[in-house]
Amino acid sequence: MGKGKLAVQVAHAAISASEEARMRRPEWLQAWLCEGQAKVVVKVTDLGELMKLKSEAARQRLPHSLVTDRGLTQLPPNTTTCLGIGPAPSVDIDELTGALQLL
Amino acid sequence: MGKGKLAVQVAHAAISASEEARMRRPEWLQAWLCEGQAKVVVKVTDLGELMKLKSEAARQRLPHSLVTDRGLTQLPPNTTTCLGIGPAPSVDIDELTGALQLL
Repeated sequence: MGKGKLAVQVAHAAISASEEARMRRPEWLQAWLCEGQAKVVVKVTDLGELMKLKSEAARQRLPHSLVTDRGLTQLPPNTTTCLGIGPAPSVDIDELTGALQLL
Repeated sequence: MGKGKLAVQVAHAAISASEEARMRRPEWLQAWLCEGQAKVVVKVTDLGELMKLKSEAARQRLPHSLVTDRGLTQLPPNTTTCLGIGPAPSVDIDELTGALQLL
Protein backbone atom coordinates (compact mmCIF):
# COMPACT_ATOMS: atom_id res chain seq x y z
CA MET A 1 0.00 0.00 0.00
CA GLY A 2 1.40 3.42 -0.95
CA LYS A 3 1.74 6.02 1.78
CA GLY A 4 -1.13 8.16 0.40
CA LYS A 5 -3.42 5.13 0.39
CA LEU A 6 -2.29 4.23 3.91
CA ALA A 7 -3.02 7.80 5.06
CA VAL A 8 -6.52 7.54 3.59
CA GLN A 9 -7.21 4.38 5.62
CA VAL A 10 -6.07 6.07 8.81
CA ALA A 11 -8.11 9.21 8.09
CA HIS A 12 -11.13 7.04 7.37
CA ALA A 13 -10.71 5.29 10.73
CA ALA A 14 -10.33 8.66 12.49
CA ILE A 15 -13.49 10.10 10.95
CA SER A 16 -15.58 6.97 11.50
CA ALA A 17 -14.48 6.37 15.08
CA SER A 18 -15.06 10.03 15.92
CA GLU A 19 -18.55 9.84 14.41
CA GLU A 20 -19.16 6.81 16.61
CA ALA A 21 -18.01 8.84 19.62
CA ARG A 22 -20.30 11.70 18.57
CA MET A 23 -23.28 9.36 18.97
CA ARG A 24 -22.21 7.47 22.06
CA ARG A 25 -19.69 9.55 24.02
CA PRO A 26 -19.97 13.16 22.84
CA GLU A 27 -18.10 14.38 25.93
CA TRP A 28 -15.06 12.33 24.90
CA LEU A 29 -15.21 13.73 21.38
CA GLN A 30 -15.46 17.34 22.56
CA ALA A 31 -12.58 16.94 25.02
CA TRP A 32 -10.42 15.40 22.28
CA LEU A 33 -11.18 18.16 19.77
CA CYS A 34 -10.47 20.84 22.38
CA GLU A 35 -7.19 19.23 23.43
CA GLY A 36 -5.75 19.10 19.89
CA GLN A 37 -7.17 15.73 18.76
CA ALA A 38 -4.09 13.62 19.52
CA LYS A 39 -3.66 10.58 17.30
CA VAL A 40 -1.18 7.74 17.43
CA VAL A 41 -0.75 5.19 14.64
CA VAL A 42 0.52 1.78 15.75
CA LYS A 43 0.91 -1.52 13.95
CA VAL A 44 -0.22 -5.09 14.48
CA THR A 45 1.29 -8.23 13.06
CA ASP A 46 -1.81 -9.73 11.46
CA LEU A 47 -5.56 -9.53 11.02
CA GLY A 48 -6.16 -11.79 14.02
CA GLU A 49 -4.47 -9.31 16.32
CA LEU A 50 -6.53 -6.48 14.83
CA MET A 51 -9.80 -8.34 15.33
CA LYS A 52 -8.85 -9.18 18.90
CA LEU A 53 -8.32 -5.45 19.55
CA LYS A 54 -11.70 -4.75 17.98
CA SER A 55 -13.39 -7.25 20.34
CA GLU A 56 -11.62 -5.74 23.30
CA ALA A 57 -12.63 -2.19 22.30
CA ALA A 58 -16.24 -3.38 22.01
CA ARG A 59 -16.09 -5.16 25.37
CA GLN A 60 -14.80 -1.99 27.02
CA ARG A 61 -17.39 0.12 25.18
CA LEU A 62 -14.79 2.34 23.54
CA PRO A 63 -15.79 4.08 20.29
CA HIS A 64 -14.13 2.19 17.44
CA SER A 65 -14.39 1.61 13.73
CA LEU A 66 -12.94 -1.08 11.50
CA VAL A 67 -11.98 0.06 8.01
CA THR A 68 -12.49 -2.19 5.01
CA ASP A 69 -11.25 -1.03 1.64
CA ARG A 70 -13.44 -1.62 -1.37
CA GLY A 71 -10.38 -2.68 -3.29
CA LEU A 72 -10.88 -0.53 -6.36
CA THR A 73 -7.22 0.47 -6.63
CA GLN A 74 -4.29 -1.13 -4.83
CA LEU A 75 -5.88 -3.83 -2.65
CA PRO A 76 -8.04 -6.94 -3.15
CA PRO A 77 -11.78 -6.23 -2.62
CA ASN A 78 -12.92 -5.96 1.01
CA THR A 79 -9.47 -5.88 2.57
CA THR A 80 -9.59 -4.93 6.24
CA THR A 81 -6.92 -2.25 6.57
CA CYS A 82 -7.10 -0.71 10.03
CA LEU A 83 -9.04 -0.07 13.21
CA GLY A 84 -9.71 3.32 14.79
CA ILE A 85 -10.14 3.36 18.58
CA GLY A 86 -11.34 6.46 20.43
CA PRO A 87 -11.64 9.31 21.12
CA ALA A 88 -11.61 8.04 24.69
CA PRO A 89 -9.58 8.71 27.85
CA SER A 90 -5.97 7.92 26.95
CA VAL A 91 -5.61 5.55 29.89
CA ASP A 92 -8.36 3.37 28.39
CA ILE A 93 -6.82 3.36 24.92
CA ASP A 94 -3.31 2.75 26.26
CA GLU A 95 -4.56 -0.35 28.00
CA LEU A 96 -5.36 -1.82 24.58
CA THR A 97 -2.63 -0.40 22.37
CA GLY A 98 0.11 0.93 24.67
CA ALA A 99 2.41 -2.03 24.04
CA LEU A 100 2.18 -1.85 20.24
CA GLN A 101 4.94 -0.35 18.11
CA LEU A 102 4.52 2.95 16.31
CA LEU A 103 4.00 2.58 12.59
CA MET B 1 8.43 12.06 8.12
CA GLY B 2 7.58 8.42 8.85
CA LYS B 3 4.44 6.98 7.30
CA GLY B 4 2.58 6.82 10.63
CA LYS B 5 3.36 10.48 11.27
CA LEU B 6 2.27 11.35 7.75
CA ALA B 7 -1.00 9.47 8.24
CA VAL B 8 -1.63 11.44 11.45
CA GLN B 9 -1.25 14.74 9.56
CA VAL B 10 -3.73 13.61 6.91
CA ALA B 11 -6.20 12.35 9.51
CA HIS B 12 -5.89 15.65 11.36
CA ALA B 13 -6.67 17.56 8.15
CA ALA B 14 -9.65 15.28 7.47
CA ILE B 15 -11.13 15.76 10.95
CA SER B 16 -10.54 19.53 11.03
CA ALA B 17 -11.86 20.22 7.53
CA SER B 18 -14.92 18.07 8.21
CA GLU B 19 -15.57 19.99 11.45
CA GLU B 20 -15.36 23.18 9.40
CA ALA B 21 -17.92 21.73 6.99
CA ARG B 22 -20.15 20.75 9.92
CA MET B 23 -20.39 24.43 10.86
CA ARG B 24 -20.63 25.97 7.42
CA ARG B 25 -21.89 23.38 4.93
CA PRO B 26 -23.51 20.54 6.93
CA GLU B 27 -25.28 19.30 3.81
CA TRP B 28 -21.91 18.66 2.14
CA LEU B 29 -20.67 16.81 5.21
CA GLN B 30 -23.74 14.59 5.42
CA ALA B 31 -23.62 13.75 1.71
CA TRP B 32 -19.93 12.86 2.00
CA LEU B 33 -20.47 10.62 5.05
CA CYS B 34 -23.39 8.85 3.36
CA GLU B 35 -21.45 8.30 0.14
CA GLY B 36 -18.50 6.60 1.84
CA GLN B 37 -16.39 9.68 2.68
CA ALA B 38 -14.06 9.53 -0.33
CA LYS B 39 -10.60 10.95 0.26
CA VAL B 40 -7.72 11.55 -2.09
CA VAL B 41 -4.21 12.46 -0.94
CA VAL B 42 -2.18 14.48 -3.43
CA LYS B 43 1.17 16.23 -3.18
CA VAL B 44 2.50 19.72 -3.80
CA THR B 45 6.07 20.74 -4.50
CA ASP B 46 6.48 23.35 -1.78
CA LEU B 47 4.82 25.41 0.92
CA GLY B 48 4.08 28.25 -1.51
CA GLU B 49 1.93 25.96 -3.63
CA LEU B 50 0.10 24.74 -0.52
CA MET B 51 -0.63 28.29 0.64
CA LYS B 52 -1.88 29.24 -2.80
CA LEU B 53 -4.33 26.31 -2.64
CA LYS B 54 -5.44 27.48 0.79
CA SER B 55 -6.16 30.98 -0.56
CA GLU B 56 -8.07 29.54 -3.47
CA ALA B 57 -10.13 27.27 -1.19
CA ALA B 58 -10.96 30.33 0.95
CA ARG B 59 -11.87 32.40 -2.08
CA GLN B 60 -14.23 29.67 -3.28
CA ARG B 61 -15.66 29.25 0.23
CA LEU B 62 -14.76 25.57 0.42
CA PRO B 63 -14.30 24.05 3.89
CA HIS B 64 -10.56 23.69 4.48
CA SER B 65 -8.04 23.32 7.25
CA LEU B 66 -4.28 23.86 7.31
CA VAL B 67 -2.37 21.50 9.60
CA THR B 68 0.63 22.72 11.56
CA ASP B 69 2.60 20.21 13.60
CA ARG B 70 3.78 21.24 17.03
CA GLY B 71 7.12 19.62 16.30
CA LEU B 72 7.41 17.54 19.45
CA THR B 73 8.73 14.46 17.65
CA GLN B 74 10.01 14.29 14.07
CA LEU B 75 9.59 17.85 12.75
CA PRO B 76 10.77 21.37 13.64
CA PRO B 77 8.20 23.30 15.75
CA ASN B 78 5.24 24.73 13.84
CA THR B 79 5.90 22.94 10.57
CA THR B 80 2.97 23.27 8.16
CA THR B 81 2.41 19.72 6.94
CA CYS B 82 -0.78 19.58 4.89
CA LEU B 83 -4.09 21.12 3.90
CA GLY B 84 -7.48 19.44 4.01
CA ILE B 85 -10.06 20.65 1.48
CA GLY B 86 -13.70 19.57 1.65
CA PRO B 87 -16.04 17.82 2.07
CA ALA B 88 -17.44 19.65 -0.94
CA PRO B 89 -18.83 18.73 -4.37
CA SER B 90 -16.04 16.84 -6.14
CA VAL B 91 -16.23 19.14 -9.17
CA ASP B 92 -15.27 22.07 -6.91
CA ILE B 93 -12.37 20.22 -5.30
CA ASP B 94 -11.13 18.83 -8.61
CA GLU B 95 -10.89 22.37 -9.92
CA LEU B 96 -8.24 23.08 -7.28
CA THR B 97 -6.46 19.76 -6.96
CA GLY B 98 -7.37 17.67 -10.02
CA ALA B 99 -4.04 18.28 -11.72
CA LEU B 100 -1.91 17.32 -8.71
CA GLN B 101 -0.18 13.96 -8.46
CA LEU B 102 -1.33 11.27 -6.03
CA LEU B 103 0.98 10.90 -3.03
